[in-house]
Amino acid sequence: MDSLRFTAKASSDGVTERDFTVGEVTGVLWSPASGPGRAPLVLMGHGGGTHKKAPAMAGRAHRLVTGCGFHVAVIDAPGHGGRPRTAHDEREVAAMRRATAAGEPVGPIVVRYNAHLAERAVPEWRATLDALQELPEIGTEGPVGYFGLNMGTAIGVPLTAADPRITAAVFGVFWHESLAETAKRITIPVEFVLQWDDEHIPRPSGMALFDAFASEEKTLHANAGRHKEVPRFEADSAVRFFARHLGRAVPTPA
Amino acid sequence: MDSLRFTAKASSDGVTERDFTVGEVTGVLWSPASGPGRAPLVLMGHGGGTHKKAPAMAGRAHRLVTGCGFHVAVIDAPGHGGRPRTAHDEREVAAMRRATAAGEPVGPIVVRYNAHLAERAVPEWRATLDALQELPEIGTEGPVGYFGLNMGTAIGVPLTAADPRITAAVFGVFWHESLAETAKRITIPVEFVLQWDDEHIPRPSGMALFDAFASEEKTLHANAGRHKEVPRFEADSAVRFFARHLGRAVPTPA
Repeated sequence: MDSLRFTAKASSDGVTERDFTVGEVTGVLWSPASGPGRAPLVLMGHGGGTHKKAPAMAGRAHRLVTGCGFHVAVIDAPGHGGRPRTAHDEREVAAMRRATAAGEPVGPIVVRYNAHLAERAVPEWRATLDALQELPEIGTEGPVGYFGLNMGTAIGVPLTAADPRITAAVFGVFWHESLAETAKRITIPVEFVLQWDDEHIPRPSGMALFDAFASEEKTLHANAGRHKEVPRFEADSAVRFFARHLGRAVPTPA
Repeated sequence: MDSLRFTAKASSDGVTERDFTVGEVTGVLWSPASGPGRAPLVLMGHGGGTHKKAPAMAGRAHRLVTGCGFHVAVIDAPGHGGRPRTAHDEREVAAMRRATAAGEPVGPIVVRYNAHLAERAVPEWRATLDALQELPEIGTEGPVGYFGLNMGTAIGVPLTAADPRITAAVFGVFWHESLAETAKRITIPVEFVLQWDDEHIPRPSGMALFDAFASEEKTLHANAGRHKEVPRFEADSAVRFFARHLGRAVPTPA
């Protein structure tokens, strides 16, 4: 098993940021700069074409660390964040660019390519989680959450179905075709975000994915707006969701 | 114009509760026991068959008062909370009881009866709001919110469409038939709650009502569960929604 190696460290605003590698996988771990040692862990998956330290990742991580005292880990998906692209990656990226340039639907390519990436990413995530749980400040006893939209959902749904260590998840903004069958095996609490006016994902497709989860507790948050207009308050909602389910109190009205 | 008369006062846990009347209408106003004088006002509508001080009303009011420092007012709907029932009320209540006892759908009766009650309740609410705004601690300048599910939505949607003083609203758990046309005239921010497994309200009906609002900012919260199983965390979400839109800060993660 590959162990975790820290490669860089920085701190600001009460948050420590440590870059790490687990084998070929590059990641980042955000933690409280001070405070109690052991705390729950939230894994976050980034969107397609971005990377582990994209602004959305850093912003959500800061909310989770400073609001709840959690650890937050993100890894670069295969072919993302400077990780090498395969010939398959190059073909699919080119196909997405051609479709976009031609004004053709990019959805079918995203669905099939992200399903392929998930096959590579799920074992990487599980090895990374093994390695993270070796750290004394995380350990194997604490609860683990997963938070990822877009490609973060395409990878997170099969990851969550495969790994019983994940006990609460925030997903959303993805098509049902490649994921609904897998979602039927997921029973943990789920918060699911979709955009009511998504120009790429038909409304019934997003709804069908939400419907597929077997979770007794699941909540759909559908916001007016287009594909990339998920409101920032959904990140705050996710923080409260994880606070409820991973066991740290968040200051909220009584 | 009928003015507001206070008829009883009590305080507990930092919240002052004052019963009042405006003409024939009976109401309650919850306020911070101490603190800055003038504050935003949230009007709340209770569900069918309950009353102004039902546990859901008192619980939500306490959250809004202690969390945000708001004033919160609830009035008894016509025929509710000890207010006299008309012959029409008695006929409709009997019809609902018969349908329930016979295992027949109660929805069509609720829809038509609540539309009737809304015609009586909207002018009562507007007169009550006039009178509440005469109070120095409320005034005419501050923002006003509306929060009501079930019958509270059947009354609140036409009230909000009619009264431009209401600038943010939480609705939900109602059929579209009697309300969708009116909802199309509403443009303020809306949070809308529905139950994914509602045994009375067909899923497409609740969704059609959410879809009808013309609001640029609107959010659907759909929770797994039956008609009466709206999760308690939706009340906390409503508090944060009003804090965002009525201008008081709530302690939340950064």
